[in-house]
Amino acid sequence: MNENAFEVRKVAVIGTGVIGNGWISRFLAQGLEVIAFDPGEGAEQRTHAAIQQAWPSLVHIGLAENASADHITFVETIEEAVKDADVIQENVPEREDLKKSVLAEIDRFAKPEAIIASSTSGIMPSQLQEDLQNPGRMIVAHPFNPVYILPLVELVGGQKTDQVTIERANAFYSSINMKPLIVQKEIEGHVADRLMEALWREALHLVNDGIATTEEIDASIIYGAGLRWAQMGPFLTFHLAGGEKGMRHMLEQFGPALKLPWTKLEAPELTDELKEKVIEGCETHAGESSVYELEVKRNEFLVKLLDLVEEYWHEPMETAK
Amino acid sequence: MNENAFEVRKVAVIGTGVIGNGWISRFLAQGLEVIAFDPGEGAEQRTHAAIQQAWPSLVHIGLAENASADHITFVETIEEAVKDADVIQENVPEREDLKKSVLAEIDRFAKPEAIIASSTSGIMPSQLQEDLQNPGRMIVAHPFNPVYILPLVELVGGQKTDQVTIERANAFYSSINMKPLIVQKEIEGHVADRLMEALWREALHLVNDGIATTEEIDASIIYGAGLRWAQMGPFLTFHLAGGEKGMRHMLEQFGPALKLPWTKLEAPELTDELKEKVIEGCETHAGESSVYELEVKRNEFLVKLLDLVEEYWHEPMETAK
Repeated sequence: MNENAFEVRKVAVIGTGVIGNGWISRFLAQGLEVIAFDPGEGAEQRTHAAIQQAWPSLVHIGLAENASADHITFVETIEEAVKDADVIQENVPEREDLKKSVLAEIDRFAKPEAIIASSTSGIMPSQLQEDLQNPGRMIVAHPFNPVYILPLVELVGGQKTDQVTIERANAFYSSINMKPLIVQKEIEGHVADRLMEALWREALHLVNDGIATTEEIDASIIYGAGLRWAQMGPFLTFHLAGGEKGMRHMLEQFGPALKLPWTKLEAPELTDELKEKVIEGCETHAGESSVYELEVKRNEFLVKLLDLVEEYWHEPMETAK
Repeated sequence: MNENAFEVRKVAVIGTGVIGNGWISRFLAQGLEVIAFDPGEGAEQRTHAAIQQAWPSLVHIGLAENASADHITFVETIEEAVKDADVIQENVPEREDLKKSVLAEIDRFAKPEAIIASSTSGIMPSQLQEDLQNPGRMIVAHPFNPVYILPLVELVGGQKTDQVTIERANAFYSSINMKPLIVQKEIEGHVADRLMEALWREALHLVNDGIATTEEIDASIIYGAGLRWAQMGPFLTFHLAGGEKGMRHMLEQFGPALKLPWTKLEAPELTDELKEKVIEGCETHAGESSVYELEVKRNEFLVKLLDLVEEYWHEPMETAK
């Protein structure tokens, strides 16, 4: 571990839209110094407004000792932004040609040992790094909006990414209070966006086919799956739906539904191998906890979460009144 | 409204698995009297254990004045169970032939004005009611596990369901602290399960293709989308991701991703008509609230929810340590 010890003090943020500004707020709250670059008119002002908006949440979550909303400097060129940075976070619009040309410029001026991270939500790192001089230090680090609150960051290395870069990135993003998910294989959309996109596409079909309105669909998630997913995600949620025998029973009971026209998406064949992967995954995650014990925890969580939902959201469904 | 006034005192629960027992717990907490039937050995004992487990959550949520965990009677026949019931909730295993034969027997002995509700997660009510003598009072009322905590219930009428049945069902389930979603058109899997199933199928593909483990997928939802969906669902979440212009900007930016191979599911064509439906839906739902105002609410909610997640769940990802 020691040889990977890698101290981050300065972070460059290239591109300051919603995602770039989210990163800036998180970095500042963690006591880092930020150098920002964005060619858009009024960018600096928008960034300060965004930091203002984010700050109360960050105070609530807890600021680092030396954190300051003022530790940010806007500069005029990418060169100036990246030349002293330990980590460079790229957040320009999601167009491959644009990202590649910006990354090439970053690559030209960054310190050799700096990490160059792209926030891309869909493009595979191997494509982004193919023309870089020093591609080993380039990685995808894909966050979720609002970046200053949500802990998930997907780390995806490309064919040319060095292992040490993945390890350093993992250590760095963990150190700023995030939950890195190291994605084992490159794929368009990584992991989380593929899941969101599947739900999103089906939701668009439902609206398109006149089955439900956007508000009804939101309500169907909020008051059903959303509450459960916030705690346990889709797999462990179904593990609990299986009763005492967990996922094994669940797959016996609802496995056949994969063949039904319940979505426009075709499911994979539920082979014995896939079944075992899923069952074993859930049992490993559950660890020592029985389904009963997990249910007790779930119930306490859900009751409190429901209170929170009631407190923070206006009634989204008229029918319920 | 007055002609639909419909007082419910006795509810019959036919089939006492996880879902049936969930209904029983909710009904009892709401002060209703329950008559249960299940031919399985030891069913009565399992039901009492399930009520025991559910009760602390129900106490926390708030019991009706006359609620008692003892207001339940198990009987030996469907006839006995349903003959005096105002609402009959059917929860036998998800096989169309079995459900149809049980519903036929319920139909034979139920009071003419009783509501006959099926908890089916996937079968369309028109199929279930086609052979009933009095199909107008039959409806799908599909709940979510744990039924005694989650508020969502999907109400779906079939071709032969009377409008008054939908109205009475809406009033009844609202009165027991639920959020009914009246589904406008019958479709396999109704609404919420289609959305869940889309995500579930994509998740199975990711496991099958070795992209991520079940635990990593759970983490990717918990720490990312799950937290947001618990509050706002998929549409309003994206409305906020669009910045000041909301969903309109979001569709401009991420609409083209619908063409990308981000899932195994084919998306609908993003026609102008579909775009307007989605944008209008979000704007109507947001109402007077600007995106900025919604963001402030969102942040307060997410910060508290994150505390709750930390409190109630063990670290699901080793990589984050």
